[in-house]
Amino acid sequence: MHRLEKLFRPGSIAVVGASGDPAKLGGRVLRHLTSFGYSGRIFPINLSGKPVQGHPSWPSVLGLPEVPDSALIVLPAPLVARALEDCATKGILQVQILSSGFAEEGGEGPAMQEELVRIARRHGMRFTGPNALGSISPADGFFGTFSSLLDTARPGPGRIGVATQSGAYGSHVYAAASFRGLGISRAIATGNEADLDVADCIDYLVEDAGTTVICAALEGCQDGGKLRRALLKAAAARKPVVIMKVGSTEAGAAAAATHTGSLAGEDRIIDTVFRECGAYRAASIEEMIDIAYVCATGPRPPSRDVGILTLSGGIGVLMADACIGAGLALPPMPAATMEAILEIQPVAGGRNPIDTTAQLNRGLQIFEGISQEMMRGADLGTVMAYMAHLGRNLERFPPLEQSLAALRRNFPDRLVVAVMTHVEEIRLRLEALGIPVFEDPTRAVKAVAGATFSRILQQAAMSAPDVARAAPLRLEAGNEAAAKAVLGAAGIPVLPEHACASPEEAQAAAEMLGYPVVMKILSADIPHKTEVGGVLLNLANAASVTEGFHELLRRAKAAKPSARLDGVLVAPMVRGGLETIIGVQRDPVFGPMVMFGLGGVAVELFSDVAFATAPLTPARAEALIDAVKGARLLEGWRGSRPLDRRALVDALCHISEFAVAHEDSVASVEINPFLVREEGALALDALIAPREEAAQPMAVAD
Amino acid sequence: MHRLEKLFRPGSIAVVGASGDPAKLGGRVLRHLTSFGYSGRIFPINLSGKPVQGHPSWPSVLGLPEVPDSALIVLPAPLVARALEDCATKGILQVQILSSGFAEEGGEGPAMQEELVRIARRHGMRFTGPNALGSISPADGFFGTFSSLLDTARPGPGRIGVATQSGAYGSHVYAAASFRGLGISRAIATGNEADLDVADCIDYLVEDAGTTVICAALEGCQDGGKLRRALLKAAAARKPVVIMKVGSTEAGAAAAATHTGSLAGEDRIIDTVFRECGAYRAASIEEMIDIAYVCATGPRPPSRDVGILTLSGGIGVLMADACIGAGLALPPMPAATMEAILEIQPVAGGRNPIDTTAQLNRGLQIFEGISQEMMRGADLGTVMAYMAHLGRNLERFPPLEQSLAALRRNFPDRLVVAVMTHVEEIRLRLEALGIPVFEDPTRAVKAVAGATFSRILQQAAMSAPDVARAAPLRLEAGNEAAAKAVLGAAGIPVLPEHACASPEEAQAAAEMLGYPVVMKILSADIPHKTEVGGVLLNLANAASVTEGFHELLRRAKAAKPSARLDGVLVAPMVRGGLETIIGVQRDPVFGPMVMFGLGGVAVELFSDVAFATAPLTPARAEALIDAVKGARLLEGWRGSRPLDRRALVDALCHISEFAVAHEDSVASVEINPFLVREEGALALDALIAPREEAAQPMAVAD
Repeated sequence: MHRLEKLFRPGSIAVVGASGDPAKLGGRVLRHLTSFGYSGRIFPINLSGKPVQGHPSWPSVLGLPEVPDSALIVLPAPLVARALEDCATKGILQVQILSSGFAEEGGEGPAMQEELVRIARRHGMRFTGPNALGSISPADGFFGTFSSLLDTARPGPGRIGVATQSGAYGSHVYAAASFRGLGISRAIATGNEADLDVADCIDYLVEDAGTTVICAALEGCQDGGKLRRALLKAAAARKPVVIMKVGSTEAGAAAAATHTGSLAGEDRIIDTVFRECGAYRAASIEEMIDIAYVCATGPRPPSRDVGILTLSGGIGVLMADACIGAGLALPPMPAATMEAILEIQPVAGGRNPIDTTAQLNRGLQIFEGISQEMMRGADLGTVMAYMAHLGRNLERFPPLEQSLAALRRNFPDRLVVAVMTHVEEIRLRLEALGIPVFEDPTRAVKAVAGATFSRILQQAAMSAPDVARAAPLRLEAGNEAAAKAVLGAAGIPVLPEHACASPEEAQAAAEMLGYPVVMKILSADIPHKTEVGGVLLNLANAASVTEGFHELLRRAKAAKPSARLDGVLVAPMVRGGLETIIGVQRDPVFGPMVMFGLGGVAVELFSDVAFATAPLTPARAEALIDAVKGARLLEGWRGSRPLDRRALVDALCHISEFAVAHEDSVASVEINPFLVREEGALALDALIAPREEAAQPMAVAD
Repeated sequence: MHRLEKLFRPGSIAVVGASGDPAKLGGRVLRHLTSFGYSGRIFPINLSGKPVQGHPSWPSVLGLPEVPDSALIVLPAPLVARALEDCATKGILQVQILSSGFAEEGGEGPAMQEELVRIARRHGMRFTGPNALGSISPADGFFGTFSSLLDTARPGPGRIGVATQSGAYGSHVYAAASFRGLGISRAIATGNEADLDVADCIDYLVEDAGTTVICAALEGCQDGGKLRRALLKAAAARKPVVIMKVGSTEAGAAAAATHTGSLAGEDRIIDTVFRECGAYRAASIEEMIDIAYVCATGPRPPSRDVGILTLSGGIGVLMADACIGAGLALPPMPAATMEAILEIQPVAGGRNPIDTTAQLNRGLQIFEGISQEMMRGADLGTVMAYMAHLGRNLERFPPLEQSLAALRRNFPDRLVVAVMTHVEEIRLRLEALGIPVFEDPTRAVKAVAGATFSRILQQAAMSAPDVARAAPLRLEAGNEAAAKAVLGAAGIPVLPEHACASPEEAQAAAEMLGYPVVMKILSADIPHKTEVGGVLLNLANAASVTEGFHELLRRAKAAKPSARLDGVLVAPMVRGGLETIIGVQRDPVFGPMVMFGLGGVAVELFSDVAFATAPLTPARAEALIDAVKGARLLEGWRGSRPLDRRALVDALCHISEFAVAHEDSVASVEINPFLVREEGALALDALIAPREEAAQPMAVAD
């Protein structure tokens, strides 16, 4: 039995703070538990010990005749700690704390919340909340929640599991799902997440046989590793996870921080983690439910290839645009398939979409032959059929229903979707065949895309390989030369450079390297050298080098008198190649994350960067590169030759392994520019920030 | 009376091809006309002259006892021309041709369609179709269409007007609108648009007093000027137009071409024209209806500033993210407003969204005070209230209803939107107060954004100023020097350059300009000079210039032996500044369109270009520049000084006026690069393509 089973499906439950007043939360919870057919034993706890809402009560859990599986605590905040202690004493080790007035409200709240955690830890107890909404399991008649939805509606049993942090968010999700006829397996809202969080609940839902699709929503995340493990477990089980994370904009993040005290985090990091772990991120509650509906109704498509069969050219075009916009593909039907289709419907237009036109002299049964020719001919993952208003016509629909049923029967692992205005009776009949039904064409396409990419992402999902921890890194100096020496040892290609303390050393180094050379000021206190004029290019002779040495020191002192200067770095002048930026930043929640982008204005103007969890494998490094639009320049641009992508992949792998191995001592590593050339590549500048320092946003060095 | 009134609201109508068989189109149309309370006179035309469906018929319109306002033709394609001629003879000058089998089917189709146009022109007749779906005016009981929707449902009367090219698209729009309780004023589908098109119908709906919002959908557009005029007329009347244009992707465009034979056109040009003319482009039918619903229910917001008042922190964050994503603003409440709000609800969180939390000890009436403090304090355009499931609770909702009603009453020109799960009764009551109601928070935000930007765009919409046509341009040579001479005369800053026919001339020119110089091959046959090595930079002395002259000619001959060579161009070497691209391309439908973007990879990698209709005013040139992300570089980048934006604005205006003045003889003008400097700007290369040549895609010259 999963360790959280008793939270979702308790065989018996105590309601601590049960009230006779149905306007109070403790009264609502008791009413919901007793009204909808829950067959478990219910133990109202009320100080009076008198009957509440007609049920006998006990003044404390300590006096109960048995140990209930679980307890719901709905007392005022100051009374919760004592009640929790009592539960532990009694042996109730799975608890939901619905009371508010803790970390989300300030004042004494955070301290009281901490106390709850200490109590639970001491007793090996697990709990949701405080400020949680409770859980439901409609098939068990179990509604352990005060959600106001239950005043007017009750979710029916089904296969969609819901785990959210925010209670109202969660109840909106299962309400909206219910109103369109979708059933819920279990739902839970974790509130302030002092102990259990959404990741724990996803972990449960993955194991829960009654759940086939998981919908989840986060506001923040405290434990990135746990979230990753839960999502990867779902991926391994091939159980779809459709997920939302609010607070993606500055305004949203500020609101999220106010709401639960949790930091929203860098949204693109969250996005990366979801994707890597096979969770599909939805853009709205409605889209989340649409995707869950497709996943719960039919098979997830085995490929991105979609065929559109339509009675209307115009809607066919609309759907084609939407497919391309959503990343799906519309392969044109092969010649032999077209022949077969035109045999069936001579006026059919297009090669995909196939427009049968509304003039169906041979009748609607032509859908059967055409749809199967399409599915077979182009080896599609999905056929979407647009059938105008026929879904409202009980008399005329049967030939279409037979066509779609035959398609499902003959291609059981492919998705078939019906798009049309419709009545409930026809929708239910198609759903029974495993065919989702949509009214809006664009929503249908987006839902198909979600189901498709959910499957593709889960197939590709895997945890990052382990890297042995290295001894803590001690950089002799925090400057460029020291960073390059360390990175060079870690396999990053660096130039033969020389750190020089005097003009004479600089001149000797330049002679050895050959002219022209580059000179840069060397100081841990000056990470952004060009801003102080700390870089001289193209120095062609000894005199310029000597003069350059003095000039660099002069500029550095003028710009930052307090800076400790370690001399200058002399390096060969390098031309050509593509300037990229490689960085690894340790995210406080998700650990070392690799960033890759182009140098120049692409990062700042177009945010053309991509992230990946460190360490990278070569395959994952390739994917990271491909996620950057500007990386097309690696293939050669306007006639130039292709650049050494392999050298870039190697460097990405090496730097990511380095960052993981030194995770305990290194906050960030950054190579900017990393020059990719026709043969090989070179780190032209590098910066390593030790972890003792406060983590800074990933800066773009010179 | 509008010239199309009789198509939308005929007082009497002939059905040419009326059939007794309700399975045939001519039978369906007659049945729809006679079944839903249309009070006009109906004249079935059937060769037999016998009663059809119980109504007397005539063998031809020629024998009718009166001249009907309009006719619907539903005959087989080969019989349509004769029927149309008869209508004209009878004096019926507004006709809808519902028959298919014309341009959309190939074969004899296009020729037959041309014949219809000739007949109509000869008689001053206007018609929709062929392959049209007809029109409806529910308030008149008029359903002149064969739409299969009417088998099971009938749109009710309302204020939303619908004009689409595709019939099924249109009927999907009004069906979906109807199912959510929205009424339709008029709807029409124009099919193949051999004569009347969607723009004509928009023009009608703007004047139609019964229509307050227009929904339109195009597949292609043949007459850009007419579309612009119709949209600008709507903007002047402040009647919202929510519009879709399918075929925005390659796959979609290919499907659209197959469907109606109309070219989709460059999607960004269409987008530009919609925006300039105040039409808001929707991304899906559902979104179009959502926006129309908001516009038809409440006032369009006077500003982008939104306040969110929510019972749920989590949903508040979701909506905040959606607002920012949609381009709306969430101003934080001023300090005094916050004081007043906290007075009302001490545990309220955030400054916008304002999260009341679900613990409302003082009851739901607090919404009244808080919502008004917000609206007043931050001078908002819209307040969106998230109220969880209270919209389903008839007992508990009244204090919220009163709060929202007071908000509407006290701020009659601002938009108030309710977001909640709800029952119909409560929705209808709020709608009667002018408050749209949504279940999904994200959809609500997108609809508010659509209504807001629809208003903002219409306020900014204006037609481009007139420019007098110039005499046809005759370039002596099609080369760079000739182009620059012409553009220099038109006010574009160009370098003092010299076209030189011999090494001696080149040397003399270089001496005069001062070294170093640039030399470029001069040939109308070599538009892309760098590809043939046709540019030499940084030539420092007479010897290099002489050698360079020979080298350039050698390279040009080697690369393109047939090219006519006009010598070389000698110009001063210019450094620094920002390379931009300015172009004007004559779109076959929309005329000269200005393009602006950055030089380098921004255009190709990130499609960072923007378009505008020529000619530009300085204000419109500024807006064009601001639409390009990379234009931020003009403000100075990483410490460099701001560049001369004014010089860029001037050049954009001059080139756009030039292109319009020479529209008859010039297909495209392109300056690439156009170098913007700290003081002034310079056209470094230019290309003018005469209109005799086939229009080419806007090429990027060197």
